[in-house]
Amino acid sequence: MNSIITSSQNNLIKETIKLKQKKYRLKENAFLVEGFHLVEEAHVSGVLKQVFYLENNPFTDINAFQVTETVMKKLSDLTSPPGIIGVCLILEKTTLTDKILLMDNVQDPGNIGTLIRSAVAFGFKTVLAENSVDFYNEKVIRSSQGAIFKLSLINANLTDFIKENQDYLYLATDLNAERSLSELSINNKNKIALILGNEGQGVSETILTLVKTRIKIKMEDMESLNVAVAGSIIMYDINRRSEK
Amino acid sequence: MNSIITSSQNNLIKETIKLKQKKYRLKENAFLVEGFHLVEEAHVSGVLKQVFYLENNPFTDINAFQVTETVMKKLSDLTSPPGIIGVCLILEKTTLTDKILLMDNVQDPGNIGTLIRSAVAFGFKTVLAENSVDFYNEKVIRSSQGAIFKLSLINANLTDFIKENQDYLYLATDLNAERSLSELSINNKNKIALILGNEGQGVSETILTLVKTRIKIKMEDMESLNVAVAGSIIMYDINRRSEK
Repeated sequence: MNSIITSSQNNLIKETIKLKQKKYRLKENAFLVEGFHLVEEAHVSGVLKQVFYLENNPFTDINAFQVTETVMKKLSDLTSPPGIIGVCLILEKTTLTDKILLMDNVQDPGNIGTLIRSAVAFGFKTVLAENSVDFYNEKVIRSSQGAIFKLSLINANLTDFIKENQDYLYLATDLNAERSLSELSINNKNKIALILGNEGQGVSETILTLVKTRIKIKMEDMESLNVAVAGSIIMYDINRRSEK
Repeated sequence: MNSIITSSQNNLIKETIKLKQKKYRLKENAFLVEGFHLVEEAHVSGVLKQVFYLENNPFTDINAFQVTETVMKKLSDLTSPPGIIGVCLILEKTTLTDKILLMDNVQDPGNIGTLIRSAVAFGFKTVLAENSVDFYNEKVIRSSQGAIFKLSLINANLTDFIKENQDYLYLATDLNAERSLSELSINNKNKIALILGNEGQGVSETILTLVKTRIKIKMEDMESLNVAVAGSIIMYDINRRSEK
């Protein structure tokens, strides 16, 4: 039977707490997920390496450590700590799907998590990012609702990527675009890459110059939409049309 | 020339700070907006009653008070307080547009603000809410990006509203619906009411039993979408199709 870890000064706990910082996540190739639902998704995906729990550990095939509430609070990012926290491995995936999402300087973790959730829902199962919030940030993971385990997440130089992968039809959102989403014609043969930009500035000029097709979403009486909403609408619409 | 208010104990400041709480907003029929962009939108909409500013006040026709940084920090909800804060009147609007959005127990202020932004963009210019976060919550206002000034916001008992307004085609989102959004047929004659529910539980059973048409958004490999994303996709799609 395991003994309970009661001190936050325990070496394993100290090392695990470090995973709250991006640089340690990169160094250790690991990240934390909180709560039964996400830990279970990690387990199903085969990336769950370790768990810390208060009372019950349903994952008996995983290296598990019982901890006190005080220790759980230190491990957690939440004001009400969960009953279980998992350490997950970051697996490098490089496979590119036929529909991909590119994020250029997206800064809000809630937006990135929501976009990852929508990307999985609409078949954009590769997400590439540059200058954006870390995929494994705790708020990104929470708002992705487990979707991070269902697609390839890649950090990349988008300029290089676009230049090297010219078999995709690149669509960049641009509030000044002449063409609206509903005027865009796509067919089932197109490999599609949707590019979304920063919440305030949109897609950068550097990227826009590389892209022929710029689209906007037709709106009444509003200048712009939330980036997660805009991206999700476009992914929904492309998915809907490519099914026909 | 105005003198500068230097103390948070000043009566006007004390009264204004109270507007950060919902009960005082309801009592005074007023709310706060932060930053030049939102204050300007309020001014254009004719609801700006008073401003508090640090150095410059561009709204010379409005009752204005210069304050110190310390006072501004007390008035503000942000970690970096803005240069200007406006007090706005809550105007009761009861006009119903042909496309309306109903929110049943939506709890995240970011979701409500984002939905209000999308509602304005897609012509759903009346939003009714029950058991949801206050429309004039500072986070709702921020994420609405000024959209709150461009539509009617109404607190209502949704059950009564639906019973009394049977000229609308009510659409409720339901993960177990048989029909998907793309299978839904709508025409230009329909007055449409979209009903969205709580982030975790969806639309309540009480409301669902009143509604004939339940729809879901077709997804791959994901159980649900963020409610602001789902609502925005449906509003986009209805707007797109009713234009044809």
